[in-house]
Amino acid sequence: MSDHLPIEELKTLVEPGKVLTDAASLETYGKDWTKHYAPAPSAIVFPKSIEQVQSIVRWANAHKVALVPSGGRTGLSAAAVAANGEVVVAFDYMNQIVDFNAVDRSVVCQPGVITEQLQQFAEDKGLYYPVDFASAGSSQVGGNIGTNAGGIKVIRYGMTRNWVAGLKVVTGTGELLELNKDLIKNATGYDLRHLFIGAEGTLGFVVEATMRLDRAPKNLTAMVLGTPDFDSIMPVLHAFQGKLDLTAFEFFSDKALAKILARGDIPAPFETECPFYALLEFEASTEEIANDALATFEHCVEQGWVVDGVMSQSEQQLRNLWRLREDISETISHWTPYKNDISVTVSRVPAFLRDIDAIVERSYPDFEVLWYGHIGDGNLHLNILKPEALPKEEFFAKCATVNTWVFETVQRYNGSISAEHGVGMTKRDYLGYSRSEAEIAYMKAIKAVFDPNGIMNPGKIFN
Amino acid sequence: MSDHLPIEELKTLVEPGKVLTDAASLETYGKDWTKHYAPAPSAIVFPKSIEQVQSIVRWANAHKVALVPSGGRTGLSAAAVAANGEVVVAFDYMNQIVDFNAVDRSVVCQPGVITEQLQQFAEDKGLYYPVDFASAGSSQVGGNIGTNAGGIKVIRYGMTRNWVAGLKVVTGTGELLELNKDLIKNATGYDLRHLFIGAEGTLGFVVEATMRLDRAPKNLTAMVLGTPDFDSIMPVLHAFQGKLDLTAFEFFSDKALAKILARGDIPAPFETECPFYALLEFEASTEEIANDALATFEHCVEQGWVVDGVMSQSEQQLRNLWRLREDISETISHWTPYKNDISVTVSRVPAFLRDIDAIVERSYPDFEVLWYGHIGDGNLHLNILKPEALPKEEFFAKCATVNTWVFETVQRYNGSISAEHGVGMTKRDYLGYSRSEAEIAYMKAIKAVFDPNGIMNPGKIFN
Repeated sequence: MSDHLPIEELKTLVEPGKVLTDAASLETYGKDWTKHYAPAPSAIVFPKSIEQVQSIVRWANAHKVALVPSGGRTGLSAAAVAANGEVVVAFDYMNQIVDFNAVDRSVVCQPGVITEQLQQFAEDKGLYYPVDFASAGSSQVGGNIGTNAGGIKVIRYGMTRNWVAGLKVVTGTGELLELNKDLIKNATGYDLRHLFIGAEGTLGFVVEATMRLDRAPKNLTAMVLGTPDFDSIMPVLHAFQGKLDLTAFEFFSDKALAKILARGDIPAPFETECPFYALLEFEASTEEIANDALATFEHCVEQGWVVDGVMSQSEQQLRNLWRLREDISETISHWTPYKNDISVTVSRVPAFLRDIDAIVERSYPDFEVLWYGHIGDGNLHLNILKPEALPKEEFFAKCATVNTWVFETVQRYNGSISAEHGVGMTKRDYLGYSRSEAEIAYMKAIKAVFDPNGIMNPGKIFN
Repeated sequence: MSDHLPIEELKTLVEPGKVLTDAASLETYGKDWTKHYAPAPSAIVFPKSIEQVQSIVRWANAHKVALVPSGGRTGLSAAAVAANGEVVVAFDYMNQIVDFNAVDRSVVCQPGVITEQLQQFAEDKGLYYPVDFASAGSSQVGGNIGTNAGGIKVIRYGMTRNWVAGLKVVTGTGELLELNKDLIKNATGYDLRHLFIGAEGTLGFVVEATMRLDRAPKNLTAMVLGTPDFDSIMPVLHAFQGKLDLTAFEFFSDKALAKILARGDIPAPFETECPFYALLEFEASTEEIANDALATFEHCVEQGWVVDGVMSQSEQQLRNLWRLREDISETISHWTPYKNDISVTVSRVPAFLRDIDAIVERSYPDFEVLWYGHIGDGNLHLNILKPEALPKEEFFAKCATVNTWVFETVQRYNGSISAEHGVGMTKRDYLGYSRSEAEIAYMKAIKAVFDPNGIMNPGKIFN
């Protein structure tokens, strides 16, 4: 990469004032929610149109400048971190919903549309955008597509991938591709749309996306159930899945709940204390369905899988029950948690969790371990909390050792080292635990096809 | 490609008798359901294991022999036709279901498993494999994946793509890739699984697939509704979609129905004759839902969108109503139909259909045109019937002219020249109507990555 960037030339490609190089902007736009790398971009550029994005990419090719895409910067893998003098392309000014079609239930979004903005737009139209997660208030559609964001409704609605009807991307050569044209059925060769989803901006940048909406769910109702041990959670999932179309099936441990209750602003679900809790949700669209849910609950109690439980009777109660799960991540941030986002097939979860638990317990009995996650999808969030007394650096170094053991276990269970957070830079050196050498070689060759000069978010996913 | 194939060497790679070169086998295994190309393979080889497939691909690389994969050969785009001395790799002996997991609702299939075999297996387990279409009794899982098969339940369940949890493929270099490991969430770089789905065997061959199953639908119920004109069908779709989770929304014209009724073995849905008919299906899992359906039907009648209708009251009636739609393709095969399988976004269907109708009407007023298809997905099957007196060659030549006009209209409506039949050889020369030059160039570059010697089903999708 060149030492002296032709920033003046870059400024001519966008509107006045849309290239920033001040220290505060470089600091802000150079990082995501991870804290491992010091941000060090050369400049931040804010395109306002697809043509401007194309010009920026052509400029970057001409001068061999690396570009890093920037959305809501809520990522947890440092995929949107610019730590090596890159130019950050921030989509803050491409944040409009540009079209809506009620018959097709489709919304054309610029990449900078905030997830919550899309959810709200759908609601205003009497429809539903079902991809939801804790950072929905800041994350952007382009970033969601880049990481194929998942979240809390995957068991019913799938990942972001399922909701992308069409995609406009600018490749590493500055070419604009219009992928899939928003069609439901389109068997005309390789579906390049799916290649760009989850590619973390390494093949090109998403500059427009047509997202599909669903009908609004009817009378969403949640249950929180306390189980006597972890092994009871899976039969509970199985029992409910056999009776109802679940819209969510989450779990959290007593330790995670304790942190939430200590805040004092969220009520306990019920008095009985249990080591694990399941939160499930469904549409109680008819009385029959609500009765099925209660009958299944009773069956689970009879089987000894459930000790106590509660079902929401109002929207307020639904929200409160969800906060028990949704607010964990923010609440525990106080303890500088070391996060891992791993997955295995659902049937392997109990044995897998037991193995990981044993590893951490054996090696670091003084570390507090919190488990929670999207267990209906086999996705577990492992959080190791920093003891107050331990310096941050020492804590992270110890956790890095745990990392290797965790990933070895993931590999043994044929799982994923990153279920929904992506690879970015934080998981890059561990990619081999989830993907074979041959796969990684093919990925690199595909990158070379779309980004021959290696300017699109280099050093992310692989080196 | 070499003139003298080392067939004796090929024979050493598989079990005795598993290479055929007799005329009857070459004729049978060299073609699919299309009749445009004369089959001319050099040999047919039947591997029984993944390792044998790898050996065959390595042999083909060593001798620069082109390979054509062969499943149920029910394709309608000549993607599985061997017309140029290729060696056909037939998966008839890799036809076992090798594993099942009730918790994950997953089935590990060899590529030669018949679609119906998978459907039946799911049913036996109290579950459901939802991808269904007329050729389910012969088509194979590997072929379904190669063409990303769609069919009659896409509106609810999506294409084959949605049900592929994991994939083992042998690439053009003979490498075995194990893609996605059956995980629900796996954000570890490019999802190569999706690249192979719909690639028509041009990047590699599917040698094993883990397919996901769904819960069994409850009390499936169909309605056939007669509409006074085509324009009424879309408001009917919209009305029902707002009230019910439809599992199907199909349509057919009076001319298509007439052919079915002329057989004499399927009863008319009702006495009133209408120019168009919609067939919709839903789960009448509660009385409330059945009542919602009837109320919506009455609303449609009041609005003048529906003239008459019938709702199935038994499984037998459900089957009979489905035959009105499902048996069209087989019934009209008598008239040597010229088939087109095209799609646009659902909202554009009425104007699009009107335009195409006008083109065919104006140019060939003596041709009978039958419309039917998966209109809830924007997917129309246009069938032009051959007048008895017209010689086949002359008819096909005239239809080829229509083709160009049809595809120009598809392009104008931003649609697809192949909704679910694939490109193969029949649509290859028209690919530019649906995919840009840049996209086609990228597709070719991707093929070169996975199949550097161009031995995997060459000449399909593009040249």
